[in-house]
Amino acid sequence: MNKDPMQNPKFKRSAVQPEQAQQLIMPYVKQLGTEQVPLTEARGRFLAESVRAPHPYPHFRRSGMDGYALRSEDTRGASTDQPITFEVIDAVPAGSLPNVPLRPGTAARIMTGAKVPDEADAVVMLEMTEKQEQDGRTWMTLKREISAGTNLTPVGRELQAEDLLLEAGRMISAGETTVLATFGYHQVQVRRRPRVAICSTGSELLRVEEPLQDGRIRNSNTYTLACQVQDAGGEPYILEAIADDLQLAKQRVMKALEEYDIVITTGGVSVGDYDIMADLVQGGSLNLLFNKVAMRPGSVTTAAVYKDKLLFALSGNPGACFVGFELFARPAIRGMLGAPDPYLPHMEAVLGQDYDKINNFTRFVRGSLQFKEGKVFVHPAKLDESGVMITIKDSEVLIVIPPTSTGVKAGQLVTAIRLPQGG
Amino acid sequence: MNKDPMQNPKFKRSAVQPEQAQQLIMPYVKQLGTEQVPLTEARGRFLAESVRAPHPYPHFRRSGMDGYALRSEDTRGASTDQPITFEVIDAVPAGSLPNVPLRPGTAARIMTGAKVPDEADAVVMLEMTEKQEQDGRTWMTLKREISAGTNLTPVGRELQAEDLLLEAGRMISAGETTVLATFGYHQVQVRRRPRVAICSTGSELLRVEEPLQDGRIRNSNTYTLACQVQDAGGEPYILEAIADDLQLAKQRVMKALEEYDIVITTGGVSVGDYDIMADLVQGGSLNLLFNKVAMRPGSVTTAAVYKDKLLFALSGNPGACFVGFELFARPAIRGMLGAPDPYLPHMEAVLGQDYDKINNFTRFVRGSLQFKEGKVFVHPAKLDESGVMITIKDSEVLIVIPPTSTGVKAGQLVTAIRLPQGG
Repeated sequence: MNKDPMQNPKFKRSAVQPEQAQQLIMPYVKQLGTEQVPLTEARGRFLAESVRAPHPYPHFRRSGMDGYALRSEDTRGASTDQPITFEVIDAVPAGSLPNVPLRPGTAARIMTGAKVPDEADAVVMLEMTEKQEQDGRTWMTLKREISAGTNLTPVGRELQAEDLLLEAGRMISAGETTVLATFGYHQVQVRRRPRVAICSTGSELLRVEEPLQDGRIRNSNTYTLACQVQDAGGEPYILEAIADDLQLAKQRVMKALEEYDIVITTGGVSVGDYDIMADLVQGGSLNLLFNKVAMRPGSVTTAAVYKDKLLFALSGNPGACFVGFELFARPAIRGMLGAPDPYLPHMEAVLGQDYDKINNFTRFVRGSLQFKEGKVFVHPAKLDESGVMITIKDSEVLIVIPPTSTGVKAGQLVTAIRLPQGG
Repeated sequence: MNKDPMQNPKFKRSAVQPEQAQQLIMPYVKQLGTEQVPLTEARGRFLAESVRAPHPYPHFRRSGMDGYALRSEDTRGASTDQPITFEVIDAVPAGSLPNVPLRPGTAARIMTGAKVPDEADAVVMLEMTEKQEQDGRTWMTLKREISAGTNLTPVGRELQAEDLLLEAGRMISAGETTVLATFGYHQVQVRRRPRVAICSTGSELLRVEEPLQDGRIRNSNTYTLACQVQDAGGEPYILEAIADDLQLAKQRVMKALEEYDIVITTGGVSVGDYDIMADLVQGGSLNLLFNKVAMRPGSVTTAAVYKDKLLFALSGNPGACFVGFELFARPAIRGMLGAPDPYLPHMEAVLGQDYDKINNFTRFVRGSLQFKEGKVFVHPAKLDESGVMITIKDSEVLIVIPPTSTGVKAGQLVTAIRLPQGG
């Protein structure tokens, strides 16, 4: 039998609170360098610099209707009994400029989005007018007064030049793309994606394509982590799994720390959980940040620093690995991307069912969201132990259950962390 | 001046309700073919077939702790005063199988996740025991009774063989990946992504990289739509913009309908909004589904069918184009991917501020979400006219304001449609 690793003093762990663990990581999170990408490839990337409006928007006086541009003062007194007739002396399709100045008593046919002639101060809807043509000239009759500014979008209605459009660190999705395209940003300066190495350890792990064997399980954490890394904005690199050769394992982890921006391991090795980590830390190569967190699942989550690289050693239990990533590794990735708030969004929600488990540690319970009559409810998953993998797929939130000796009753307010719904 | 397209009878439009418009589209939405992708590339894809468990999970009796596996009956009577000692005759690391059968009075050292020997029915935590070694033999002493089943996960605790794991049409993200990997699905059968052609029309449009010109705007809808298509699960193809050549425009749209699964146009042409569509429909090549929807923004949204292909002609106004896509084109894309519910999720929320605008049509107002004390509030964006582009970026929901002659007061319940937060 192997010597018992649990008796070794290096396994003495003192627990830090989850928030404290997050704070211990952050000083080592540095924004990565930048690169330029075409706007068409910028979706999901993070802006490296704030973007300001190079010009007002709209940048010309824009017609909001198909109709006629005219001087509102010329419509004074118009009524059903006293219609006023305008000669139509110009036509301005969208994208064109007016051809002639509008004189008093004249109007220009104009399309939605077209530039309103400088002399006009209003646009009247086509439906409010009647048209006559005679001898190659066109006339338009109006039976009501039109006030200045009608159907006319002034310059700068939405934005002035130099207005802040998008803050640095913002992720680019559809709405950001609208803004960037509108202002001519066809190339976008974004942060380089963090390169994240993922490495599972444990001789119980079968490759996903291997036939099942008694006493062994397939390696699912690696694939789940790869998705989570992508959801966070990083690039996952799945390394070869490490079985039970400690020396090889150490070499591999150290090499990964040299080559990647972040290294995530999941699971222990056959001679004891986190043996590799403990050895690396004892050897002085790594600066240990924490090796126990006062939380369930995932209390044995470990983080360490090598030079300027972060190493996360997550539990091998699927639920604990999932939660450990979202609480600790994701904020590191988001921080490297320059996100101003790297943590998942929190909300206050009503607990939908009693949660009876008691614990000295904070629990992060997988759960689902329900919206009903203006209220938001969260429902704990039926199975939420750290070893359970099946409920990860239906989880929309992590329900935060503080240390409790009584459980929490349905109807009480709890904090819920919204999980990414990636893909 | 051009002849006035608004006087042409082909522009007579009769409005359908938004739900009715959605229903008119659905009969033409057919699930696309399938393809196989490696699990590592399956994120964001849609399962083509339901997935069942090929074996129970766990598939062996799993230890939930580092400790000793034993027969609970052997612990009967153990107490501080009367400790019971077991000979430790085996060691089972995770991934290994027990080497010898456990006899009464013996125990096996066992690691978390390892297979519990068949003769054992419980695992006692290491911390509850004391170890003695003598003459090359190992003994373990226990001071309390252990009940059957302690720290032992039975076969099939999470899932039985043949249990439904994932329904067809489900999108693959982190949790689905966990399940697929656990059960050995290293290749996944998914739906082919819909190929969506995007084509803007309008001679007012500048390319994003062109310098600004008076009276013209940059083409932003195309890029926004490309993001929206990706968020929906489709593959966007940005076609060359169409200026004012009607014949060329028709040719291009018809060619795109032959080559792509869906065609989306945005904006009109300089001689009148949607002239192309009207001409195509009049020419008999297309089957018009609707060309006006009783909604704001985007009342002129048009949908038509050519053979088995859908064409969406969305407004050129940024806000209207955005909303038109999410309400009509996205469900078509999701339907082609086999999603059981292709529409964006709805919720009941509390209106955070008065909304005073009145309208005969249903309004889909861009807004933001706020969670507070267990309630969910929605706040309309300050600028939400169809022509406004800047508020798209901060929109998390579309607030549904039914036809009203009074507006809606703060505190009332409204329906909110949750927008994708893509990337």
